[in-house]
Amino acid sequence: MELDTICALATPNGIGAIGIIRLSGDKSWEITNKLFSKDLQCFHSHTLHFGKFYSEKEVLLDEVLVSIFESGRSFTGEESVEISCHGSLFIQEKIITALLHVGCRMALPGEFTQRAFLNGKLDLSQAEAVADLIASQSKSSHELALNQLRGNFSTELKDLREQLIHFASLIELELDFAEEDVEFADRTELKALVTKVHQKVMRMAASFELGNAIKNGVPVAIVGAPNTGKSTLLNQLLGENRAIVSDIAGTTRDVIEETINIGGILFRLIDTAGIREGAEEIEVMGIERSKEKIRQATVVLCLADATSDESMEQVENWVNELSGEFPSKKIAMIVNKMDLSQQTAMISAIAISAKEGQNIETLKTWITDSVTSNFDMANETIVTNARHQSALLKTAEALEKANFGLENGITADFIAMDIRQAMHWLGSITGQISEDELLANIFSKFCIGK
Amino acid sequence: MELDTICALATPNGIGAIGIIRLSGDKSWEITNKLFSKDLQCFHSHTLHFGKFYSEKEVLLDEVLVSIFESGRSFTGEESVEISCHGSLFIQEKIITALLHVGCRMALPGEFTQRAFLNGKLDLSQAEAVADLIASQSKSSHELALNQLRGNFSTELKDLREQLIHFASLIELELDFAEEDVEFADRTELKALVTKVHQKVMRMAASFELGNAIKNGVPVAIVGAPNTGKSTLLNQLLGENRAIVSDIAGTTRDVIEETINIGGILFRLIDTAGIREGAEEIEVMGIERSKEKIRQATVVLCLADATSDESMEQVENWVNELSGEFPSKKIAMIVNKMDLSQQTAMISAIAISAKEGQNIETLKTWITDSVTSNFDMANETIVTNARHQSALLKTAEALEKANFGLENGITADFIAMDIRQAMHWLGSITGQISEDELLANIFSKFCIGK
Repeated sequence: MELDTICALATPNGIGAIGIIRLSGDKSWEITNKLFSKDLQCFHSHTLHFGKFYSEKEVLLDEVLVSIFESGRSFTGEESVEISCHGSLFIQEKIITALLHVGCRMALPGEFTQRAFLNGKLDLSQAEAVADLIASQSKSSHELALNQLRGNFSTELKDLREQLIHFASLIELELDFAEEDVEFADRTELKALVTKVHQKVMRMAASFELGNAIKNGVPVAIVGAPNTGKSTLLNQLLGENRAIVSDIAGTTRDVIEETINIGGILFRLIDTAGIREGAEEIEVMGIERSKEKIRQATVVLCLADATSDESMEQVENWVNELSGEFPSKKIAMIVNKMDLSQQTAMISAIAISAKEGQNIETLKTWITDSVTSNFDMANETIVTNARHQSALLKTAEALEKANFGLENGITADFIAMDIRQAMHWLGSITGQISEDELLANIFSKFCIGK
Repeated sequence: MELDTICALATPNGIGAIGIIRLSGDKSWEITNKLFSKDLQCFHSHTLHFGKFYSEKEVLLDEVLVSIFESGRSFTGEESVEISCHGSLFIQEKIITALLHVGCRMALPGEFTQRAFLNGKLDLSQAEAVADLIASQSKSSHELALNQLRGNFSTELKDLREQLIHFASLIELELDFAEEDVEFADRTELKALVTKVHQKVMRMAASFELGNAIKNGVPVAIVGAPNTGKSTLLNQLLGENRAIVSDIAGTTRDVIEETINIGGILFRLIDTAGIREGAEEIEVMGIERSKEKIRQATVVLCLADATSDESMEQVENWVNELSGEFPSKKIAMIVNKMDLSQQTAMISAIAISAKEGQNIETLKTWITDSVTSNFDMANETIVTNARHQSALLKTAEALEKANFGLENGITADFIAMDIRQAMHWLGSITGQISEDELLANIFSKFCIGK
């Protein structure tokens, strides 16, 4: 495959000390040579060269530092150049324009990473991890992306795929001897294998809920009538733990009211203004009006006032009602104002004093546990990508069919087809099968310069 | 002077493919070594190394590309390191935090450039050019900053200073022989020299008006009664030539309505809404109300409607009135709607048709000439910095005193003092004299990471 030489700004738009323009392709050095004051062909890969950079009309544009990478030893796997210039948008634009004049093409969004994939430097799930890594906002999302970039997920998928290949080879051997009605593959063993792989795949697919929450922030709704101390609790939770990048536009998909980083996980507080504001209505309508907001939440904290029996009773009813309606959500009754009350602790509730900061750490632990307790985040694969989850679910579906076939004595050729289908879907995650549309779809989500 | 090792993010804040963290100081390599998977001491300067970067607690943070620069061969002149990591703010913050844990200090605004100055890699006017270069928004401002960075201005100042040194040495020689009443220095020659240097310095100081306009955009007011075609002219001028970076916050000091790049120079259109909106009042009050806006402009375009004798007369009066009141401004009468009129061209006006695009190029040429014609921008030094202009004016003042002394036979010691004063002020531009306050003042205007 012959690819032209592409270029793009790799650093963010804006004013900084340094800006970097990246080139990748067979002619990266040759093209840079036309505009740079030194001859790059004289140098070794992985070296830096200070010199003057000229426009295509030989007008001096800037004094720059050029890094060179030979084919096979760069991020993309292609011959590459990085031009480190002064961080002025004007200069960056002039340099890119000059490069376009002497043989470069402007890179498409994600094209650098796509080339890294095409050259076997990254598999698909690793390439996707690059985008996740760049957007990571919390310790956990950063760790998940970094694990994925380092290929942990890919290795695990490869293992599963190899088990299925072994299975398939046995089944397909039978097909060759179909006339003779032999069974090379022990059906009981095969069923055990399919069941094992299926369980593993389902567990990975299930981890997406956590993975997605970690990647985009876990939505938390704090529900409570006025004067139960909702704002005080919010401030206690926010404390010094405000999310690092909550004020940077474009890093999150939705407008976020407040984000909190607890134990390295980003939590997004869902606007429950419906409850906060229309005070009288709430008393009347209970929590009906905020159901829509609660529907978006993974964690729901229902706040009761320990000094009011009425409030305690009301919130207990809420929790029961919500738990019935949303069995998959983590719903807790939080009894606030314990400093003012003689209430004894309830087993099913977390007793705090938001004002005095009492038991806030317990609450925080409960919140993080509520999202992470089902998975061993340090050692288990957590799926963070909807495309991966979808492929895993399709893998599981194919395995279920194979299992059904095994149980009902369906002929080997049909079972082999199901297994091949399962392998196809597993492979689609890392790109071992690479449909053109799939690729285009993945890389178009990148921004230019990646 | 022993300096600690500093670090900062050198690329703009935001999401991009790459972010760069820069270190400078004696221990740059040693500190990076503590967190990086390879031993930098094994490598040569100006090489790049791919590896893993860990936190101070040995948690993997990212896979990075590290560039190393030995003392004397970096931007700052000190041992330096640049860490190229994934463009995530989270990762960048973690890497910087780790560096701070193992011996780095956070860089102050402009501290990298300050160190480059202190190590003699740049003089003061070059250091200031770095900031200008980063903020450059147009071809001309970019060229001026680049010339200054390359030391053209410094060289010229050095030449002038050497001429004064020669003068001073002769005068001071006389002082040594004061008792004997000799004159080593020919007074006529001295006077010629002082006059020559004074003229040169005054011309440089005068260029500041142009330099400042180029750097910050030349303010242009378009004055005209409603329906003279002001909006049409504006659109014609804007055309495809909108300033490249007009929509980026923080690159310009003032809120800018519209900016146009004509012939590589940035023009800022001053809001003359007072004239645009209050139509009836204008007819009554003439241009009184917009005087305040005109006061801010360097160029004033007074637009007349060729199809209305009344308009022609009114605008001619405006031009005369304004030219009298603001002799230093470039004021032109622009006669619009020539396509609809039989008016013969007036010598003192530029006849156009904004609607038909007729003569727009002539107008553009007039606009650029009006700001650049007094100076040869390609070969002459244009001062862009208020500090430089102020120092040049103080130099000129000292030279005038010296001249007065020469003309009035004042004793050599007083003349020598004036000359030394002039040399002091010239030197202050490049930092050959370096007052601490002066330095602190200059570098504090930089942002961190520069």
